[in-house]
Amino acid sequence: MENVKHLKCIKCNATYPAKPDTYTCSQCGGILDVRYDYEYISQKVNKETFNARKEFSMWRYREFLPIEEESPVSPLRVGWSPLYKAERLGETLGLSSLYVKDDGLNPTASLKDRASAVAVVKAKEAGADTVACSSTGNAASSLAGNAASMGLKACIFVPGRAPEGKVAQLLIFGARVVSVQGSYEDTFKLSAEAIERWGWYNRNAAINPYLVEGKKTVSLEIAEQLNWQAPDWVVVSVGDGCTIAGVWKGFKDLYQAGLIDRLPRLLSVQAAGCCPINRAVMEDKPWEPMPEDTLADSIAVGVPRNPDKAINAIKESNGLPINVSDQEILDAMKFLGNSSGIFGEPAGVAGLAGLKKAVSEGKISHTETVVNIVTGNGLKDVANAVKAAGEPLRVAPSMEELLQAFKTV
Amino acid sequence: MENVKHLKCIKCNATYPAKPDTYTCSQCGGILDVRYDYEYISQKVNKETFNARKEFSMWRYREFLPIEEESPVSPLRVGWSPLYKAERLGETLGLSSLYVKDDGLNPTASLKDRASAVAVVKAKEAGADTVACSSTGNAASSLAGNAASMGLKACIFVPGRAPEGKVAQLLIFGARVVSVQGSYEDTFKLSAEAIERWGWYNRNAAINPYLVEGKKTVSLEIAEQLNWQAPDWVVVSVGDGCTIAGVWKGFKDLYQAGLIDRLPRLLSVQAAGCCPINRAVMEDKPWEPMPEDTLADSIAVGVPRNPDKAINAIKESNGLPINVSDQEILDAMKFLGNSSGIFGEPAGVAGLAGLKKAVSEGKISHTETVVNIVTGNGLKDVANAVKAAGEPLRVAPSMEELLQAFKTV
Repeated sequence: MENVKHLKCIKCNATYPAKPDTYTCSQCGGILDVRYDYEYISQKVNKETFNARKEFSMWRYREFLPIEEESPVSPLRVGWSPLYKAERLGETLGLSSLYVKDDGLNPTASLKDRASAVAVVKAKEAGADTVACSSTGNAASSLAGNAASMGLKACIFVPGRAPEGKVAQLLIFGARVVSVQGSYEDTFKLSAEAIERWGWYNRNAAINPYLVEGKKTVSLEIAEQLNWQAPDWVVVSVGDGCTIAGVWKGFKDLYQAGLIDRLPRLLSVQAAGCCPINRAVMEDKPWEPMPEDTLADSIAVGVPRNPDKAINAIKESNGLPINVSDQEILDAMKFLGNSSGIFGEPAGVAGLAGLKKAVSEGKISHTETVVNIVTGNGLKDVANAVKAAGEPLRVAPSMEELLQAFKTV
Repeated sequence: MENVKHLKCIKCNATYPAKPDTYTCSQCGGILDVRYDYEYISQKVNKETFNARKEFSMWRYREFLPIEEESPVSPLRVGWSPLYKAERLGETLGLSSLYVKDDGLNPTASLKDRASAVAVVKAKEAGADTVACSSTGNAASSLAGNAASMGLKACIFVPGRAPEGKVAQLLIFGARVVSVQGSYEDTFKLSAEAIERWGWYNRNAAINPYLVEGKKTVSLEIAEQLNWQAPDWVVVSVGDGCTIAGVWKGFKDLYQAGLIDRLPRLLSVQAAGCCPINRAVMEDKPWEPMPEDTLADSIAVGVPRNPDKAINAIKESNGLPINVSDQEILDAMKFLGNSSGIFGEPAGVAGLAGLKKAVSEGKISHTETVVNIVTGNGLKDVANAVKAAGEPLRVAPSMEELLQAFKTV
């Protein structure tokens, strides 16, 4: 990989060759970051190169990705999700230039496909025949789907309480699913032991340094879709911190390669009931664990696995942390759906709830350009959609009844 | 619309000017078909025109669509779904050239978005402020989503038994949902009465002649994605008949405009428990109603609303009707998922089940090029995925238990 210099520990600065199965820092246990040779990259590509490309997926940005030039990638269309100018939504919020990036349209319906698509390529590079992780959510389904598309085996550890529907999706994708009759922590530990024992490729987030690199492609796309401009703000919902870290890495990459000439600010949105990363930024203290008290399960992470990169991203970008209640999240789900026809899962629309609050508090001005990322599809969590939705009009099959019902609305 | 000549009744050949709110034949009640001026179209566009276009949605084919040149369309990315070369799936079936078109990646996760996207444009052209239909399924959610994206009101009639989750999605999109405490027939009748009374735009399938035109864009894309070649076979699951009619119309349009030089054959797949269209073709008799005995709810249509166009399409294409059991459908769901990473709903994978059968019966040869359309996303019907999926391995949190469990698999 001529575009990659090395992996660098974000805690102790130790560096390592970028091997596919190097995960964390062997000296201090810190998280590693992929470092690129931007001079090399900027000699290879520029705006015109990209504008001329016919590959409409995250793989149009291979020069920015830590994979071997000749490595085969999944045929699934991961990335190049649509960026919509959200006129009516913008009007309602009082924003003249609001965009929505719908990452729920990825193959397994969430932004996590971008990370898993990289993971399966690195697994093949490492010569592994099995990839593994512990998760019940979007990481698991995206890994199972992407692995299936590449003919790789997947072994996924889920806690016993995982909903049947989510487990079914993994099984449909042919993953071996191990349901651990214990807590999430038990599940994670058993997965780590098994990964070690069988030498499987490890897709546990914030352990594997390559996942964030896949996630960053959402920012590369945003910039290109805005004709190589960074917006003033990018709004992201935050759980374990990997997504916002990826979003920031993407813009920094483009800046360092000379493709954009300024960086956006990040609006980091967490659920009020589970906001360890935002609390650390707000109080300027080290992060501490929190209970997971929110219905937005994809961001209900009390012990974030990537707090350092996330906190760095928010601070470096001169960003803003903002917390929202579950009710505000449910309201945002309806608000987004009925103004734009986009159906987001609770974690996917938490960003919008935070944006609404930030605008109403005067923290974001009406003329700033804002991109809100919807990170997952509402079909993933229909139970919460039911809570948000309200009730239909119930009528007997007669026109008089219908007239009566319409009058009372 | 200079590209459109008129609407023509497929029963009595009466013609009508193509007004947005002309629905069925006022003389015999027959279904109308949009007739184009192919000479005009072929002067406007050719392969090179399309190859150079940057619009990657169904709207890249505006010259083939019955909408006014200046009519605004929904910003949602409807269409241009990926066409995957399905290597492993093909190997297993014994097909050297198999492709899968994943229409579950549309904005509301089904092929029906293509029809609803046209419906909302025609509603605006008709000056309506509300569009309406009766449905609980993909037609309803696609209409609600597309209407929301255009700032149109939607009024959707559902029978009282409609699942809460499906109703919730409509409400999230801001539709007014009328839950009729009666049968589907009661629901349909009340919707028709209300549409008449309030002059709403009518999106009931096979009544509105423009919907099929939206659906046909799936074929325009297939041909372009295969570099302007028609495959030997296109595999489609069939319910009310509108989708297969649309698929056929698309290829015929391209042929008549000189963009392809031959037509594919259609494999029409229905559930054995509900196959009035296939039965009519197989027995060469007029169609008759059937019970709706299948779990594939999106194609469980005992009284199809568009049998004539569908039967014509199968016959004209020298096509083949094939029926599959519910078990074959569930098997296909797993089969598709684990060989390719695509998660289809039961109706969405019924086509694949039929394809498998047709190949094993020698009706499709190993070297023929086949495109299988996946019409809807599996996240729409997780309950049936659970039936298909099987069970995870259940273990206590210990390595010994895990070893034991792996041995017994």
